[in-house]
Amino acid sequence: MTVSVFDHPILSGLLGEEKLAPLFTARAEIDALLRFEAALAEAEAEEGVIPQKAAQAIASVLAGFHPDVAALKTGTARDGVMVPALLAQLREKLAAVHRPCLHFGATSQDAIDTGLALRLNAAMQQLGARLDQLVEALEALERRDGGLEVMAHTRMQAAIVVPAGRKIRAWREPLARHRIRLETVAQSVAILSFGGAAGTLDKLGEKAPSVAARLADKLGLRLVAHARHSERDAAGDFAALLSLITGSLGKMGQDIALMAQSEVDTLRLAGAGGSSAMAHKKNPVKAEALVALARFNATLLSGMHQALVHENERSGAAWTLEWMLLPQMVMAAGAALRLAGEAVEGMSFVARKE
Amino acid sequence: MTVSVFDHPILSGLLGEEKLAPLFTARAEIDALLRFEAALAEAEAEEGVIPQKAAQAIASVLAGFHPDVAALKTGTARDGVMVPALLAQLREKLAAVHRPCLHFGATSQDAIDTGLALRLNAAMQQLGARLDQLVEALEALERRDGGLEVMAHTRMQAAIVVPAGRKIRAWREPLARHRIRLETVAQSVAILSFGGAAGTLDKLGEKAPSVAARLADKLGLRLVAHARHSERDAAGDFAALLSLITGSLGKMGQDIALMAQSEVDTLRLAGAGGSSAMAHKKNPVKAEALVALARFNATLLSGMHQALVHENERSGAAWTLEWMLLPQMVMAAGAALRLAGEAVEGMSFVARKE
Amino acid sequence: MTVSVFDHPILSGLLGEEKLAPLFTARAEIDALLRFEAALAEAEAEEGVIPQKAAQAIASVLAGFHPDVAALKTGTARDGVMVPALLAQLREKLAAVHRPCLHFGATSQDAIDTGLALRLNAAMQQLGARLDQLVEALEALERRDGGLEVMAHTRMQAAIVVPAGRKIRAWREPLARHRIRLETVAQSVAILSFGGAAGTLDKLGEKAPSVAARLADKLGLRLVAHARHSERDAAGDFAALLSLITGSLGKMGQDIALMAQSEVDTLRLAGAGGSSAMAHKKNPVKAEALVALARFNATLLSGMHQALVHENERSGAAWTLEWMLLPQMVMAAGAALRLAGEAVEGMSFVARKE
Amino acid sequence: MTVSVFDHPILSGLLGEEKLAPLFTARAEIDALLRFEAALAEAEAEEGVIPQKAAQAIASVLAGFHPDVAALKTGTARDGVMVPALLAQLREKLAAVHRPCLHFGATSQDAIDTGLALRLNAAMQQLGARLDQLVEALEALERRDGGLEVMAHTRMQAAIVVPAGRKIRAWREPLARHRIRLETVAQSVAILSFGGAAGTLDKLGEKAPSVAARLADKLGLRLVAHARHSERDAAGDFAALLSLITGSLGKMGQDIALMAQSEVDTLRLAGAGGSSAMAHKKNPVKAEALVALARFNATLLSGMHQALVHENERSGAAWTLEWMLLPQMVMAAGAALRLAGEAVEGMSFVARKE
Repeated sequence: MTVSVFDHPILSGLLGEEKLAPLFTARAEIDALLRFEAALAEAEAEEGVIPQKAAQAIASVLAGFHPDVAALKTGTARDGVMVPALLAQLREKLAAVHRPCLHFGATSQDAIDTGLALRLNAAMQQLGARLDQLVEALEALERRDGGLEVMAHTRMQAAIVVPAGRKIRAWREPLARHRIRLETVAQSVAILSFGGAAGTLDKLGEKAPSVAARLADKLGLRLVAHARHSERDAAGDFAALLSLITGSLGKMGQDIALMAQSEVDTLRLAGAGGSSAMAHKKNPVKAEALVALARFNATLLSGMHQALVHENERSGAAWTLEWMLLPQMVMAAGAALRLAGEAVEGMSFVARKE
Repeated sequence: MTVSVFDHPILSGLLGEEKLAPLFTARAEIDALLRFEAALAEAEAEEGVIPQKAAQAIASVLAGFHPDVAALKTGTARDGVMVPALLAQLREKLAAVHRPCLHFGATSQDAIDTGLALRLNAAMQQLGARLDQLVEALEALERRDGGLEVMAHTRMQAAIVVPAGRKIRAWREPLARHRIRLETVAQSVAILSFGGAAGTLDKLGEKAPSVAARLADKLGLRLVAHARHSERDAAGDFAALLSLITGSLGKMGQDIALMAQSEVDTLRLAGAGGSSAMAHKKNPVKAEALVALARFNATLLSGMHQALVHENERSGAAWTLEWMLLPQMVMAAGAALRLAGEAVEGMSFVARKE
Repeated sequence: MTVSVFDHPILSGLLGEEKLAPLFTARAEIDALLRFEAALAEAEAEEGVIPQKAAQAIASVLAGFHPDVAALKTGTARDGVMVPALLAQLREKLAAVHRPCLHFGATSQDAIDTGLALRLNAAMQQLGARLDQLVEALEALERRDGGLEVMAHTRMQAAIVVPAGRKIRAWREPLARHRIRLETVAQSVAILSFGGAAGTLDKLGEKAPSVAARLADKLGLRLVAHARHSERDAAGDFAALLSLITGSLGKMGQDIALMAQSEVDTLRLAGAGGSSAMAHKKNPVKAEALVALARFNATLLSGMHQALVHENERSGAAWTLEWMLLPQMVMAAGAALRLAGEAVEGMSFVARKE
Repeated sequence: MTVSVFDHPILSGLLGEEKLAPLFTARAEIDALLRFEAALAEAEAEEGVIPQKAAQAIASVLAGFHPDVAALKTGTARDGVMVPALLAQLREKLAAVHRPCLHFGATSQDAIDTGLALRLNAAMQQLGARLDQLVEALEALERRDGGLEVMAHTRMQAAIVVPAGRKIRAWREPLARHRIRLETVAQSVAILSFGGAAGTLDKLGEKAPSVAARLADKLGLRLVAHARHSERDAAGDFAALLSLITGSLGKMGQDIALMAQSEVDTLRLAGAGGSSAMAHKKNPVKAEALVALARFNATLLSGMHQALVHENERSGAAWTLEWMLLPQMVMAAGAALRLAGEAVEGMSFVARKE
């Protein structure tokens, strides 16, 4: 099924991103959940919260597990989250005595949010690398074309002549700032979520801090003082950064499309697109896609901030809304970085004729 | 790949809609494009614009066509739209003499927008049927529970006692109004898009009106005076209706969740969801999903209206943005109607105790 | 205070609309509330629900009333709505015996929503007239310039030559459709809101229908079967139409700015704006403002649809959100229609040079 | 005129903020522009770019200046920005010889964006102080009520008993994080904007860096390497933070409204609002306003990110859109902080009865 362009076997050629996509498959999601449960059992065994034997049995079941996806689908329709059905499948394979030790003291949100943090951590590393590459590509472009004189435009009118480097810097410098923002945001996103039923780790008693510390360590996530189940500022902040990235690239795309206009001819694009009706056209397809992706993320960002109104200790409504929006925003940012890189690679500024 | 919940093999159990989904597969999209090209060739042959032989050859190629999806993906990445690559594949199978007769006088947007109209037409019929069923289910609920006395709440405080029927009518009547709106909107959505390169059908000369009329007739779409390539009000209007539908159902979902609160107990839900941490919970999962879907469509609606700023005769940026948003909004409306129907089926009002 | 551009003594020169503005003053709002209370007392007296003497006393107090605005402000901070404080001020001026007869059987939302309907009714008439004028101006423009040959552009690239009339029709025809939509939407917006505490008119007993009918008649508003306090589809629908209007005009503004580019020179604008740094500039200020207004309304529309999730019998949160958004959207639509009219008046197409 | 609730003499009692409001008057805006022009003339005289005499004459004219607001309004309608008309008024009062020295080398955007930075700097200081006060008030609340046992709720259902302190921390900790974010964002917002016509300070030659440094120093703003006229990430980032603040407070407001429900009674509110129809009601008006403000800013945030697509060296459309949105978002954040403070002051948790 292909409701979303990111999942679409054809449109993803333009709007997708092949390196990020594997992070958002159902398989990747389940694997991240299993990784959480495995690390939790290990940590709890090490702290004597559950028996070592139980942890071993759990590890063994998790290692050889093949999910019944249809049952997970049915369970999610009933429970609103796939974790109870997933645990039921896993428990079926455990000896009865070990069953209560799986997921002990945790809640569905711990597993889902931590699993997402693991995948977003990988996504952020890719986005960071893409940002670095794009900044470098723009530096190279400036070295090559930066000295050419081109017309600046303000309010859609020719203004004065400037070096092309002025334009290139206006694309590059925000990206360098986003790179720094990404480091800061990652501190809040790549965290362990572990709070139990209502955020108090009530079943772990005084072992709660040490289990949490071990768990965070095993998963390579940052440990925070309390679970932030209902505090969604990190998600809202990350979404804003994703939209800042696509927004800055959308500005670049809009500039490209304007400079590549037939009548303006300040920029030439390799590999521009063809038309089914007009053979002479050289359409700035990647540039237009950058604008579309910018407006897409600016649109979805609003919903991520509506989801900040996360009532009580856990809001099914607000949490589900995040699931519907955030993966798409990550993909849009990845696709925009890819497209911008391709566009920069194929572009040449044209010096102004006297 | 499963970035979107609607394409997700597990989450679609909660948030998907199995009857609408087939309208948004890549295969359904290609089929609709082929249907456009077939009808176009027929209409042009009937009007003597292309030879009958060419039309027959085209029909034969279209009937037996199996797309090379990978090549369509590459082509879309280059051209921004799949039509040029699709036509290239089709032309390869045609004798050279017939090749110019395929897609004659048309442009990519004619094929894409008409293909979408065909699928949205089917979607609107399903949405209409779902609305009718839900209105009926609410009428039955009112007949059964409408006379029970329940507490009304204003500004989140108990107000006065009202019959449950008052609440049920506040859910039902907007749906009945949406049903009427759907009929009106459908008049603008289920239209033929046929304008050629820049909306003037320049290659068809005086045959343009008669070809267009035949084409609309063959496809079961309404004929409009001029192609509306850059006039996106129908898409914006339809998106608004989809969001009105999910919004009204989101209000219903919010009401359900509030009335089903443990402490309020005005409404009981069959089949409420379980928790991985608390066995006693009866979570109003469908009601929460209704709220999430409402906020989702209210979010995406904004982007559909940003896309009204569709520059010149065709905007790659604004058009692409629609592709990213509208299918998801249709699915969200379908899923909300399904969930609301299921929720109504399982609900019982509880008369107020003295 | 001038947080909003519409209230700003300077920026409203560009972005305001002087004929609509008077409908959104505090004074206009209070007057509409008083008109509701006056008509209600009359209707209730005519139906024998309150004594004629009480109605006369109320009419007399309302006629001579000067509100204590500071006290209304304090009251609104406390009650979330100005009606309780307004009624308190009015009751102070009534003999004790008549006090319960003021606002009898009604609730704050009846007064506020009906008062808004009265003002929106006037606003819709102005918007309708503006749409008519603009359609006529575009018809005149087409008669004058429609035959000139100009370059069409698709995907930001020169496409083929078309008559200017093709472009003008793409601006005009959506406006003609909006004019028709306005008639339909007005049927839902210009309605009486009258339901009492929880929408059942519980205090009026069997007199409820006849009082409501008289009240609607006196106010020139449509009578609907039940109060729609918590059914906000009319507001969401109207907001969508306002955004369709600004969106279609934003497309026109974007086209103007693109055609008026120094390098393109397909359109010339009288009275274009000056720059503080570059004396030679002719900035397409009105066109840019049209784009800004389109994006503004597309943004705010999302919030109006979030407000559809209006919990229970009355949601303070969702209702307040409408107050924050809808008046601005009306003003934006009015301003865009004004600016578009001015832009059309000053524009001339330039035939393409060979 | 009072289209916006923030400018409304009555509704601002609920939704306004009296300490921030003075930063957004037309007078405050003009004063900030004059402060920019004064500091610019000083800096340029010190660097020998303009004569000392000119700077003295400019200082004297600026000091005694009373703007003709009507002429500024007319000028803004023409130029899209008030600076050209303001400069015209100022130049009229200068001897002809000094006129070119006013605003020398600068562009309208330098003045407007720097003027806004000065006012936002003051606003951020107030928001920071408000955040600190609120964090302290929540610490005090935790000390007093934190040990009371209350029911936690997940997915709108009673879950397990937790100490009230758990809830209070879930409100406070995001605010403490926002306080830190504010420091970071302020580094990008409180900057000098100074680039001249197209961002190259072309008229200042080699004196550009030293003039800029002096200017930043005089205005108490941070100096950045190049003007960021078309790089709007700071505005988008600040808007996101404003929405994070209102979002976190909206969550708090939603929690308050849910806990204060008649049937739940976990929280009691002093000074809750009255109803015009039901004397017994105690409406959680401030809590509802917090939710409305959260949804409002989440809505407007989208438009601020749409404005990141800021074409070329200066976009009239995207820039104007920011003017329409950002001041309202600042006010909403200020109002939410005020309301949250008032709500905390009047609230008492109620221990769960056995």
